[in-house]
Amino acid sequence: MNPLQVNPRIAIVGATGAVGDELLKLLISRRFPFSALRCFASEKSVGKTLHFDSQEIVIEKLEKNSFIDIDIALFTAGSSVAKQYAPFAKESGCIVIDNSSAFRGDDSVPLLIPEINAHALEKHQNIIASPNCTTTIMLLALAPLHRLFPIKRIVAATYQAASGAGKKAMSELEEASKAYLENRPFSPTVFPFPYAFNLFAHTSPLLPNGYVEEEMKMVRETRKILEDESIQIHATCIRVPVLRTHSEALNVEFHERVTVEQAYEILSCAPGVKILENREQNRFPMPIDAIEQNDIYCGRIREDQSQKNTLDIWVVGDQLLKGAALNMIQIAELILAAKPVEIGAAQQ
Amino acid sequence: MNPLQVNPRIAIVGATGAVGDELLKLLISRRFPFSALRCFASEKSVGKTLHFDSQEIVIEKLEKNSFIDIDIALFTAGSSVAKQYAPFAKESGCIVIDNSSAFRGDDSVPLLIPEINAHALEKHQNIIASPNCTTTIMLLALAPLHRLFPIKRIVAATYQAASGAGKKAMSELEEASKAYLENRPFSPTVFPFPYAFNLFAHTSPLLPNGYVEEEMKMVRETRKILEDESIQIHATCIRVPVLRTHSEALNVEFHERVTVEQAYEILSCAPGVKILENREQNRFPMPIDAIEQNDIYCGRIREDQSQKNTLDIWVVGDQLLKGAALNMIQIAELILAAKPVEIGAAQQ
Repeated sequence: MNPLQVNPRIAIVGATGAVGDELLKLLISRRFPFSALRCFASEKSVGKTLHFDSQEIVIEKLEKNSFIDIDIALFTAGSSVAKQYAPFAKESGCIVIDNSSAFRGDDSVPLLIPEINAHALEKHQNIIASPNCTTTIMLLALAPLHRLFPIKRIVAATYQAASGAGKKAMSELEEASKAYLENRPFSPTVFPFPYAFNLFAHTSPLLPNGYVEEEMKMVRETRKILEDESIQIHATCIRVPVLRTHSEALNVEFHERVTVEQAYEILSCAPGVKILENREQNRFPMPIDAIEQNDIYCGRIREDQSQKNTLDIWVVGDQLLKGAALNMIQIAELILAAKPVEIGAAQQ
Repeated sequence: MNPLQVNPRIAIVGATGAVGDELLKLLISRRFPFSALRCFASEKSVGKTLHFDSQEIVIEKLEKNSFIDIDIALFTAGSSVAKQYAPFAKESGCIVIDNSSAFRGDDSVPLLIPEINAHALEKHQNIIASPNCTTTIMLLALAPLHRLFPIKRIVAATYQAASGAGKKAMSELEEASKAYLENRPFSPTVFPFPYAFNLFAHTSPLLPNGYVEEEMKMVRETRKILEDESIQIHATCIRVPVLRTHSEALNVEFHERVTVEQAYEILSCAPGVKILENREQNRFPMPIDAIEQNDIYCGRIREDQSQKNTLDIWVVGDQLLKGAALNMIQIAELILAAKPVEIGAAQQ
């Protein structure tokens, strides 16, 4: 068998966005094997070209039959596009890896973080969901602990970057800050609130229980990924004036005592996690540390003095990479590793 | 008795700093009654002049006998200056209101937030401490609830502004951001870490228990102000790229159930607190709302779905005002209201 024949044909849906950019870079940097690449984006980008590894790729319009010659489609175009087009992709025998929340709650759809629940891939029916960025970054640190010391309750406060709301939000933060510093007026168009030197509750829809949707994603997705409906999670999601890295203060109550030393030991060999700290310099992970890094950074693990069996953990991770594009590519790699022949078979 | 004769003579120690600026403005805007004003600052400012209400005030050098003709000294010059000079002031019969942590733990020193524990003033022995900004902003919202529904445990995550580290830190945030946006290098001098579009753990000393001093201040000061050693407090203090307003995500467990409605009812008539929210617009207090505002803003009260008897509350307050200068001036006003004649007597 010629290995080239079994290299999958890839599509990126939402190729012009911030996550799309990272997906394209990762295909090259991780030497992802593929035999064809097609890029789709919204109407206004159709016909434009993308630079990719010294080639020019023309952006195509997404249609029902776009997936006929595709083996793996990486969707990062939001929930409504995913709901509309992923079923067509699935019908065409294509495997969809979706970065939106469209299918995350679906029992037939694995919600995958390859370092944590790769086994869930087995049950897939051609749609696999990649979790919310905040959940992924949190669970990279918490899942390895939970495996040895079951978690009872998490209280999370997030410090979320602009990138979670896309490229335009990142520009808005820069433009708004520049205007502020130059004493010029600025009217935001992406966020409903001024962003320069300011912060605000995550702008996902507010639910009747007072939580925003982003916070409830952390609750539901954590339970699904850890396969444990008993874990209690409370989150406060805040958008801070940072460009592309999410930080999270995690207060974690376990069913039994976990020492700080045990936590460091577990996390120091956890996949996708790096411990970063220098206590003498009061130096813990910061957003700028994690920019363009594949691993999430973790540090400042403390025993909570206010409650037994409780640790406090600080995590920081690149929202566009492990929070989105990298996790999607890792899922694609897992698919290839699991069933290379089957993927190739779709091309016949 | 001529009221002018009993107006106190005021000194500001640390008059050139960010809190000093606000103290001077508040003396005017609140029509604080005083018969003389002297300003002290560090050696490099001595001899320079300050504009104050169309006057020029010459900055003086602080000396042992500086307080002989002073009735109330407002200290905002850090802990070591307070430790060195407040005792001289006290010996001279002057009342010291200190914004540093120097005396906050001292049993003979009231730690005062006038809206909360004005009664503690009675025991003063000429030194009164104003609490840490983060504690004051938190307790404005929590003390009124605690009075009716005792608090068991608080998990606080802070989003602290540059101003807590002074004027130079505020400039550093602006300069660093400007440099970043213009793609110029910038070397921080106030903070040990880059501040532009970045955040980091509060840089107060890290203690052996893994908490930074700022976090332990929230623990100790809360217990002292609420006169309740049983309250458990856990805090994560983070410096965010915001100029002068602290925000705090407070997860508060009570001994019994408090409904969201009860909490809003209590806080809507709590002194120094304003409820600010518009749930339809996902609009909750933001740092820019509280800039130069005397009240702290509070909103987004939610019943925690992860644990019974627990509410989540979001508070935002001007670090330089209620977090520092305003609280100090309110303490001074309380002293005048309590014992105007005694104050006047010191001038004889």
